[in-house]
Amino acid sequence: MERVYLDNNATTMVDPKVKQAMDPYYLQQYGNPNSLHSFGTEVHPEMRIALDRLYEGIGAADQDDIIINGCATEGNNTVLKGIWTQRLTENKPFHLVTSQIEHPSIAHTADWLESMGARVTRLPVNAQGLVTSEILKEHVSHGSADLVSIMWANNETGLINPIKELCSAAHELGALFHTDAVQAAGKIPVNVGEIGCDYLTFSAHKFHGPKGVGGLFAKRGVPSVTLLHGGEQMGGKRAGTVNVAYLVGMGLAIKLATEALEYENTKVRAQRDRLEDALMDIPDTIILGRRENRTPNTILISFKGIEGEAFLWDLNTNGIAASTGSACSSEDLEADATLRAMNLGPDLAHTAVRFTLSRFTTDEEIDYTIETIRKIVQRLRSISSTYS
Amino acid sequence: MERVYLDNNATTMVDPKVKQAMDPYYLQQYGNPNSLHSFGTEVHPEMRIALDRLYEGIGAADQDDIIINGCATEGNNTVLKGIWTQRLTENKPFHLVTSQIEHPSIAHTADWLESMGARVTRLPVNAQGLVTSEILKEHVSHGSADLVSIMWANNETGLINPIKELCSAAHELGALFHTDAVQAAGKIPVNVGEIGCDYLTFSAHKFHGPKGVGGLFAKRGVPSVTLLHGGEQMGGKRAGTVNVAYLVGMGLAIKLATEALEYENTKVRAQRDRLEDALMDIPDTIILGRRENRTPNTILISFKGIEGEAFLWDLNTNGIAASTGSACSSEDLEADATLRAMNLGPDLAHTAVRFTLSRFTTDEEIDYTIETIRKIVQRLRSISSTYS
Repeated sequence: MERVYLDNNATTMVDPKVKQAMDPYYLQQYGNPNSLHSFGTEVHPEMRIALDRLYEGIGAADQDDIIINGCATEGNNTVLKGIWTQRLTENKPFHLVTSQIEHPSIAHTADWLESMGARVTRLPVNAQGLVTSEILKEHVSHGSADLVSIMWANNETGLINPIKELCSAAHELGALFHTDAVQAAGKIPVNVGEIGCDYLTFSAHKFHGPKGVGGLFAKRGVPSVTLLHGGEQMGGKRAGTVNVAYLVGMGLAIKLATEALEYENTKVRAQRDRLEDALMDIPDTIILGRRENRTPNTILISFKGIEGEAFLWDLNTNGIAASTGSACSSEDLEADATLRAMNLGPDLAHTAVRFTLSRFTTDEEIDYTIETIRKIVQRLRSISSTYS
Repeated sequence: MERVYLDNNATTMVDPKVKQAMDPYYLQQYGNPNSLHSFGTEVHPEMRIALDRLYEGIGAADQDDIIINGCATEGNNTVLKGIWTQRLTENKPFHLVTSQIEHPSIAHTADWLESMGARVTRLPVNAQGLVTSEILKEHVSHGSADLVSIMWANNETGLINPIKELCSAAHELGALFHTDAVQAAGKIPVNVGEIGCDYLTFSAHKFHGPKGVGGLFAKRGVPSVTLLHGGEQMGGKRAGTVNVAYLVGMGLAIKLATEALEYENTKVRAQRDRLEDALMDIPDTIILGRRENRTPNTILISFKGIEGEAFLWDLNTNGIAASTGSACSSEDLEADATLRAMNLGPDLAHTAVRFTLSRFTTDEEIDYTIETIRKIVQRLRSISSTYS
């Protein structure tokens, strides 16, 4: 067992088929799709296929928009700042409602908007770590909010928010509804028509596509949001030369991920549950969030008396990649916002380690991980000053 | 002769060495560089090398910032909107000075800022099609402008603005200076230390790197500009998971382009001049912009009596890719802003065709292009209602 990658909520390996599909667009079909000559137009059919796959992958209708962009951070910034600037033009105040467990690309954008004069309401979670429509209705009065933005699935815990109910509640309150579906797409069925959201963000590198490309869904008729002004790409809604290779790659990636949803929900879930059961057999161990409320690939676990960083280091030495806190905030080593919002206390927050599987995870890797973790826990607890 | 690509100002073929350098980051070294485990950290050395190559490529100092982003459009939007929002926070008006010949990613962003209440001054060009420091000083009074943004080289004409003088003049006027160097980088020497600019935008796909990655230079000490809020990537100045493959590719691409500058200025220039001389032998033909003022790879030419689109179509039928107007605005078929600013009149503007070479252009391709254009001009003029 050389190396085991169990950090698929941070990023994923590109599917070999996706890599292969992208290869022709560097040395052969390298034209700018906005050009009128054959180098430009010859890439249009594959771009169209990729877009069709994205529409199908998230259940969008023909009249809806899917705007291809550079990453989920761009998508999230585009929606929040887009509605803010619209209000600014109309000389009206902006009230954003979001939650305490959002990814930094929502949380820090909300902070920034607040610094620019916007009103921001950050909803707490319930005892199960979920944001619910009851919480939304309790904290927001009718007609007061412009935009509600709640993540579909949480990156740390894997907990899945009741997004359809949240969307309905937001609409009842008279607000637009956006969801950051980065951790949902490719893990659970995502259908924008079914949940009725106005905007939805996704990112290819979370479902075995490349890093550096994402998409923003915008329902027909909703206010147009644009962060990058310039050329006429994406109908003028997102300027910038289209990264044809990555668009084609993302299109195939969502197709493959959608086809693998059943496998994700059975085989990957079974692997995850087997790993989870084995870890729960270790004494003084806490799993965060009910299994049935989580994406099928995610475990967030705390071993009493063991610092997350120390644990991660030992795992890494043994070739296993896992994580503490979101990779996007790993550099500062602060306890993750999600864990703080769940009121877990510093002890639990600092011991939590995340294991996230993918459809490329093997049974042998799970066997090796279980065996290795048992040894690590034993060793670290034997030298721990806080465990006896 | 199968196909000849002479549209290198729209986009370029990825250098095969660049493609090769990017390949390992999809199936093998796919970690998120913000992760603490080996999948994350193992990509750091190559990312560091790529950044070093970019610093060296544009002559930046260690204390300066080069912020990796998704494209030049993002870089341009980041600077203009960054300074605007800073002024907004301080409750002060914003005055942007730019020119009439900018790329849409500056021009349309300026339009948008104007719609948001900003003051925008758009400088005209002189008889040679250049924006000069005299024009800047004539139109802008001391202390009135916050930011001056002038492109280094024009995408349509290849004309190179006197950027060092413009930068000095902007500073004398008390303004920050930004240049969109997208069409300069890789074609002529670009040294930020030498010109003294505060911000500079570049894009990999214009110098044989991939589409979907660019960089924004920001001199040490200048106001921080951020368009994408979120994770701590790029020191918190540009959130979003780093596209490691493309960063590595862009680093190598700028190194190769810098090494090829001499070749660009001799061999490519000679090929361009040979093509230009041959085309000028055709009667009633106008070349726009003095040769010595242009990037070595660019020709913008008008054949009297021949519509640009018809000409392009015939070229395309013969396997030659050229362009009319910026590829970024090709879809609307309007006369390009640059040509309008040069007061060329609709006739010239609608007949202008752009040929742009690269270091991959061969002598045989130039021979074939000359021969083909002669035939096309003859044929189209023989059926032209406006040529006799």
